[in-house]
Amino acid sequence: MQAMLAQTKYLWFNTSKRQEFIRITDEVASFVDTSKIVEGLVLISAMHITAGVYVNDNENGLIADIQEWLEKLAPANINYKHHQTGEDNGDAHLKRMLINHQVTVPITNGKLDLGPWEQIFYAEFDGQRKKRLILKAIGIGR
Amino acid sequence: MQAMLAQTKYLWFNTSKRQEFIRITDEVASFVDTSKIVEGLVLISAMHITAGVYVNDNENGLIADIQEWLEKLAPANINYKHHQTGEDNGDAHLKRMLINHQVTVPITNGKLDLGPWEQIFYAEFDGQRKKRLILKAIGIGR
Amino acid sequence: MQAMLAQTKYLWFNTSKRQEFIRITDEVASFVDTSKIVEGLVLISAMHITAGVYVNDNENGLIADIQEWLEKLAPANINYKHHQTGEDNGDAHLKRMLINHQVTVPITNGKLDLGPWEQIFYAEFDGQRKKRLILKAIGIGR
Repeated sequence: MQAMLAQTKYLWFNTSKRQEFIRITDEVASFVDTSKIVEGLVLISAMHITAGVYVNDNENGLIADIQEWLEKLAPANINYKHHQTGEDNGDAHLKRMLINHQVTVPITNGKLDLGPWEQIFYAEFDGQRKKRLILKAIGIGR
Repeated sequence: MQAMLAQTKYLWFNTSKRQEFIRITDEVASFVDTSKIVEGLVLISAMHITAGVYVNDNENGLIADIQEWLEKLAPANINYKHHQTGEDNGDAHLKRMLINHQVTVPITNGKLDLGPWEQIFYAEFDGQRKKRLILKAIGIGR
Repeated sequence: MQAMLAQTKYLWFNTSKRQEFIRITDEVASFVDTSKIVEGLVLISAMHITAGVYVNDNENGLIADIQEWLEKLAPANINYKHHQTGEDNGDAHLKRMLINHQVTVPITNGKLDLGPWEQIFYAEFDGQRKKRLILKAIGIGR
């Protein structure tokens, strides 16, 4: 019979730009390493509702393409009803919905089981203030 | 060594309007409380293919913005091929895909570990009939 | 106290067309059956960054609608910055982001706990070469 383990960590961000994509694969890998979990899942989930998490290529051209595409499908320059509350970040809520706010990565043999080009990104859409992301790993411990 | 627990519950919906977004954070929190799981994950997943689940702000203006946005990106008034089967809900399938049909919420210290503004919503796109959602929690029991 | 199990399997695809949607519900169900897990979760995640996974109807009209819709929202005929690297698959990266690259399906009583019309699909957007998907199941064993 094998012991179940669960580990939690919070990553904090305070971006200098309003919109910024930050590669966090190494931080997640390091968390999994210290978790002592050999077989399981790690959830990576943005805890603020104007930020997301996604897995894709670490290529600057593609990152610019993704940002342009999000701007086309969920533009900033719209008079959102949400702005009647005094906020100005309606587009940031929609961008989070479009790319999704979380991913789950499998843990195999104590490592993140990612494909050759898969990299984990935190996507900030309304930054320049402290915001948090949760890492929660569960699985069989070593 | 710690015991692993798993708990399941089905929530049923029968909305009065065709499209309706329903906040379900309290129902999920109550399920986690009775699950006796202290560290783990809870999956919240719509079981019908014209409904979704998302996590965002409980603000009426934003909810209206999300609905307008979904209508723009996945409009109802299109002659979808799917309608040749006699259905009229092609847009509802696409709206479910756009916002996604499931979220996973971490459980920490026996509680949903959500950010300050994160609220869980069931998004019905073709209602006025009985439809189901599954809650599945797994983790370390108390 | 109950034993925790974890099982892993990789599915390989090499589609004859560049874009192809393949129903994989039976392969996932068979994997869960051999995993000996009775209560838990199975993650189904595309490991290449130009493919996705989704759960929706197995109806040919709807599948054509989804493909047309993805082409409208993330078109192929655009001069993406990503193409300056020599690639020509910028749209495939965006299509993966739009439909998402993974789903988690609950396991109840040793079976996939899907709704009546829910079917799991692998969505290839840049095929005609070998690509991989991971199945990772965790839960209570029988």
